[in-house]
Amino acid sequence: MQENVKDLLEEMKNMSSLMLDLSYSSVFFTSKDIAAEVVELYDRIENMEEKITIHLLSASREPHLARKLISVLEVVESAKRVASAARNMSQMVIDNKELHPIIKEALQESDEGIARTVISGISPLANRTIGDLRLRTETGIHIIAVRRGPKWIFNPRKETRLAKNDILIGIGPKASCKKLRRLAEGRR
Amino acid sequence: MQENVKDLLEEMKNMSSLMLDLSYSSVFFTSKDIAAEVVELYDRIENMEEKITIHLLSASREPHLARKLISVLEVVESAKRVASAARNMSQMVIDNKELHPIIKEALQESDEGIARTVISGISPLANRTIGDLRLRTETGIHIIAVRRGPKWIFNPRKETRLAKNDILIGIGPKASCKKLRRLAEGRR
Repeated sequence: MQENVKDLLEEMKNMSSLMLDLSYSSVFFTSKDIAAEVVELYDRIENMEEKITIHLLSASREPHLARKLISVLEVVESAKRVASAARNMSQMVIDNKELHPIIKEALQESDEGIARTVISGISPLANRTIGDLRLRTETGIHIIAVRRGPKWIFNPRKETRLAKNDILIGIGPKASCKKLRRLAEGRR
Repeated sequence: MQENVKDLLEEMKNMSSLMLDLSYSSVFFTSKDIAAEVVELYDRIENMEEKITIHLLSASREPHLARKLISVLEVVESAKRVASAARNMSQMVIDNKELHPIIKEALQESDEGIARTVISGISPLANRTIGDLRLRTETGIHIIAVRRGPKWIFNPRKETRLAKNDILIGIGPKASCKKLRRLAEGRR
């Protein structure tokens, strides 16, 4: 069980942090695409929470472990609360709630941005690894997640090979976000 | 009021995201220093929430605005929930709760780290601006906040001049975090 809970917890932490970034982004761009991604990720978070809880319940038969297991549940609960806060923000976008312009103003101040972009068939990123592309050095963008069909790759490694239709999520200076979008679309 | 609410909202968003990073960090390093920072920031979040609410209540006398103001409260509420999730994690550290080793394992997988370090009197960072130091290019570290006494500077600009006793909070690859700590302490 150890291995499995560790992986689930790690993924839950990464996913909830990503959701938070994405949710601000969905509000900033009034983007239903990004908002839908957040809501969908929330379902996965609930699913992971359930899996972890089942693992822990079966492990907690050993009384000396039970106390330590509480700390794991506490982290799970925190990650879920972050995810739920993110979902609530994105839900406003999906529900076409009137957003006060002050929200956009407050969110745009930061020099940091988040880019969500799809790799086109003519993109120079397709079929190359993240390491080869030296994306962080060349564009200033840190790729925090890659979505391939229903699968998410968090903190992709240098060896991760990008493919057509992959959705890239990157953070970095706003100018770098633009650069990444251009590269992914294959525009000159 | 516009200006003020915008600034408060922006700071609340930045602060809550910072708290989340710091809280994972406090658990990972079992650091009461970092945990105490998170708990203290939470008080400020509550304070900001109160200020924003007062501003909004006085603005909501105009009925056509009231609906849009709800969206601001929604963002405030979300930021606060993120902050509160962060505080709960850090509170475990302060309360000496037994942490299951699996938590550290799950948190250490990421290549990204967070560095919290104090600038010593002999540090080459003292009395230099962030732009001059080219910290992001030279060390790979993105300085997300500087704490100077009770004051926080979020997303410091290139022109921000660092000083002795400033607390730097940076994110970046773990090796870069080490580099920043060495620089701040003035070790060779």
